[in-house]
Amino acid sequence: MTVNIALLGFGTVASGVPFLLKENGEKITAATGTDIQISKVLVRDDAEKSTLLAQGHDYQFVTSIADILTDASIDIVVELMGRIEPAKTFITQALQAHKHVVTANKDLLAIHGAELLKVAADNGVALYYEAAVAGGIPILRTLANAYNADKITKILGVVNGTSNFMMTKMVDEGWTYDQALAEASRLGYAESDPTNDVDGIDAAYKMVLLSQFAFGMTIDFEKVRHEGIRKITPEDVKLAQKLGFVIKLVGEIVERESGIYAEVVPTFLPQHHQLAKVNGVMNAVFVESIGIGEAMFYGPGAGQKPTATSVVSDLIALAMSVAEHYPAPPFNTFVRETVYAQKEDLLDKYYFAIETEDKTGQLLRLAELFDAEQVSFEQVFQESIGENRASIAIISHRMDLNQFDSLVEQISALDGFKLRNTIKVI
Amino acid sequence: MTVNIALLGFGTVASGVPFLLKENGEKITAATGTDIQISKVLVRDDAEKSTLLAQGHDYQFVTSIADILTDASIDIVVELMGRIEPAKTFITQALQAHKHVVTANKDLLAIHGAELLKVAADNGVALYYEAAVAGGIPILRTLANAYNADKITKILGVVNGTSNFMMTKMVDEGWTYDQALAEASRLGYAESDPTNDVDGIDAAYKMVLLSQFAFGMTIDFEKVRHEGIRKITPEDVKLAQKLGFVIKLVGEIVERESGIYAEVVPTFLPQHHQLAKVNGVMNAVFVESIGIGEAMFYGPGAGQKPTATSVVSDLIALAMSVAEHYPAPPFNTFVRETVYAQKEDLLDKYYFAIETEDKTGQLLRLAELFDAEQVSFEQVFQESIGENRASIAIISHRMDLNQFDSLVEQISALDGFKLRNTIKVI
Repeated sequence: MTVNIALLGFGTVASGVPFLLKENGEKITAATGTDIQISKVLVRDDAEKSTLLAQGHDYQFVTSIADILTDASIDIVVELMGRIEPAKTFITQALQAHKHVVTANKDLLAIHGAELLKVAADNGVALYYEAAVAGGIPILRTLANAYNADKITKILGVVNGTSNFMMTKMVDEGWTYDQALAEASRLGYAESDPTNDVDGIDAAYKMVLLSQFAFGMTIDFEKVRHEGIRKITPEDVKLAQKLGFVIKLVGEIVERESGIYAEVVPTFLPQHHQLAKVNGVMNAVFVESIGIGEAMFYGPGAGQKPTATSVVSDLIALAMSVAEHYPAPPFNTFVRETVYAQKEDLLDKYYFAIETEDKTGQLLRLAELFDAEQVSFEQVFQESIGENRASIAIISHRMDLNQFDSLVEQISALDGFKLRNTIKVI
Repeated sequence: MTVNIALLGFGTVASGVPFLLKENGEKITAATGTDIQISKVLVRDDAEKSTLLAQGHDYQFVTSIADILTDASIDIVVELMGRIEPAKTFITQALQAHKHVVTANKDLLAIHGAELLKVAADNGVALYYEAAVAGGIPILRTLANAYNADKITKILGVVNGTSNFMMTKMVDEGWTYDQALAEASRLGYAESDPTNDVDGIDAAYKMVLLSQFAFGMTIDFEKVRHEGIRKITPEDVKLAQKLGFVIKLVGEIVERESGIYAEVVPTFLPQHHQLAKVNGVMNAVFVESIGIGEAMFYGPGAGQKPTATSVVSDLIALAMSVAEHYPAPPFNTFVRETVYAQKEDLLDKYYFAIETEDKTGQLLRLAELFDAEQVSFEQVFQESIGENRASIAIISHRMDLNQFDSLVEQISALDGFKLRNTIKVI
C-alpha cells in the first residue's frame, strides 16, 4: 500500500525529503509495510511553481492549501515553511482535517505548541517535530522512548550552531565577537540579522521543547532567561583558559526541590567536560539522570540532509500507524503541571570579571562584599593591565540567584569598580 | 491494569529494576497506561532465597523456571543471569510459553541471537535487548527508530569500558599495559580473567549486534577480526601523540561496495576526533550516514542503574503492547542478506612500529618494500633509541587489506628488522 503525504513549502530542507525517501525506500518499506509518496507540494505562487517545474521537479505543485486539506488521500502533511504565519493556520487546518502533521518549526512550537497539540488530540491525529531541536540529533525521540524509564535531573545543551561556531573561533583562535560574526556571515551560518542566534533566543525556544520531553513540564518562553555572547571579550576567553575552562553558550534546564528552571547563558565549562569538546556548528545535548547517569547526544544541529532525516523518521512512525490502522501515539506522553523553581533553590558558581584601580585594598573591598553575602571565593586571579588599572577575575563558590543578583547590584554600584562581565560556571 | 513480569536472576543489574520501577512509577504508568509489577523472581536455590528474604526483599522467590513458565499471569520475562546456559534454555522456554523476553545477555545474543529471534517470531512475542550494547546508551533503539530514515555507512564504537579505562591511563599517564590492568582490577573494572575485555572479544560481540541494527546484516561472530590492547607499549602511545593521534580500542563496522566488514582493533584516532575524547569507563558509538552525517551517542557502558534503565525502557515498550493488546513490534525490522566485503575493498591507513640497526639505508629498504606494494608514506618518524638501534614509525597512506597483509609478512621476514606493532589509523 501507499501512504500519501503533502509538503508545505519546497525550500532547502523540504527538497531533502524526497532524496531520503528514494535512497532508503526499501528500508522504509520494510519497516512500515508501506511506501511513502509525495502526493502534493504547496508553493507560494504560480511563479515558484513554474520555476520548480522548469528545474525538472515533477511533483503536483499547488498554490492553495485547500487542494491539500480537501484531498482525502493525503494522510500526513509536512510543514517546512517556517515562521509563525501562515504555518500556524495551515497546521491547524491540516490537523482539523484529520491529517497527521510533521514540522521542524521550533519558533511556532515553542510559542503555540500547547495549542496545536490540543488541536491534534481533539482531532485524533498526531503532531511530530523531531527536527525542531538540534536538527539531525534524534534527541526528542530518545527522551520520549529511552528516558521514559529514567528521571532526568538536568539538561545541558549546545543547541545553536551559529553561536557555537563563533565561540569556537573566539576560544581556539582568540578572535573577537565581531571577527567571529563576520566569518559566520561569510560562511552563511549567520543570517543578516543574527539576533536569534547570538542572543540565545533560538536556543531558548529549544529549551521550551526540551523541557516538555525531559521534565514533562512546559516552561513559558518568556520565563527562559537568555543572554547572548555579544559581551564576551578575548580577555574573558583568556581568563577562562587560565582558570581551566572553555566558554560556550549553554542552555540549561534543571529540576530542583521547588520546581523547574531554564536559561541560556554564556557558561564556563570545565575543559574536561564532554560538552566543552563540542566545536564548530555541531550541537550536543548532555543529559543527567538518576538511572543512566551522564549521557550525551552529539550531531549536526542544522543542514538540509540532517534536518530532513529527522523529518522522515517522524514520517515513518506516522506512516506505520496509518498503514496498520492504529492511532498514532502522541509524540510525547510525559505531562506534569509546570512548577517553577524558587530563586533560592538555584545554586551555581559564577565568574566575575572586574576592572579597578591598581592599588592596595581593592580586592579586600570585594572580599568584604562577598563575605557579607556569605559567598566565598573558589579561585581569584588578579593582574595589572597597564595605565594603573588591574583586572580581577573571581570564580565564586555556589550561591543562589538572590545572592547573585544582590552581588551584581552591589559591585556595579561600587565606586571605582567596573563589573565588566559575569558568567555562570559549571 | 497491571502487567506482571518475572525476573530470572537477582544480581546487581536485576536489583536495579525495582528501584527504577518505583522511582519512575508515575511516569511509567502515564506512558503505558499500566503498572509494571514484579510477580516472581527466579533464584538459584533455597539458600539464595533465604538470604534475599533475610535482606528484606519481599518478592515471591522461586527456584524452578516452571513456576514462571506455567504462570499465565506473567507477560514478560527479564533474563539477567548472564552466560549461555541455562539462560538460553530459559529464554527459549519463556518465548515458547508466549511471554515477551528482555535480556542484556550480549554473549548469548551474538552467538545464538538469530535462533532466539526466530523462536520469538514463531510464537508471536518479542525479544528486546537494549542493555546488551553499551549499557546505558539507548543505541539500538536509536538505530531502529531514528536511523530508519537514513543509510549508515560506518559505525565506530568505544564499547568496552574496561579496556577504554586502561587505554585512558596508558595515554594520559603513560602507564604500561600491566600497570593499567592492575588498577582496573583494583577498582573492580577488570575480572580475574580479563581476556574478554582486553582482547576485544566483548566488543566483537557488540559489533555483531550493532551490525544487525545499523546495516540489517548479521555478521558471524567468527568473522569479526579482533585484536586486543596487550601489545600496545608506552612507545606506541608516545609516538601516537607525536604524530597527532590517540590510541583506543575501537570497533568498526563499514559497508563498502562489495559488502560489510567488522573488526575490533587498537586504532589511532586523530586527537580532534569526537571518539578520541571518550575517556575512562565511558562508552560511545559514532555513526556516519548519508542523511545525518556524523553523530555520536555517549554514556556509561555498564553499571547497575544504567543497565537497569535500558532494561526498563524495553519493559515499558513491551508493557504498552500488552496493555493495549497489540502485537509488540520486533526490536529490529531491518534485515538484509549478509554479504561480506572483499579484502581489496577495505582501505585503511596503518601505523607500523619498526626497530632496526641505526645505520644508513634502513629506511630506504622499507621505502622500497612499500613502493613495490604501491603504498606511499603519509608520515615517517625515525629516532635513535640507544645501543645502536633506531625506532622507525610509519603512518602509511591508504592500502587495502591484501596490501597490508603482504607488507606485514614482508617486513616481518626482512633480515635485521623487527616489526614491533601495527595499528590501524583513522
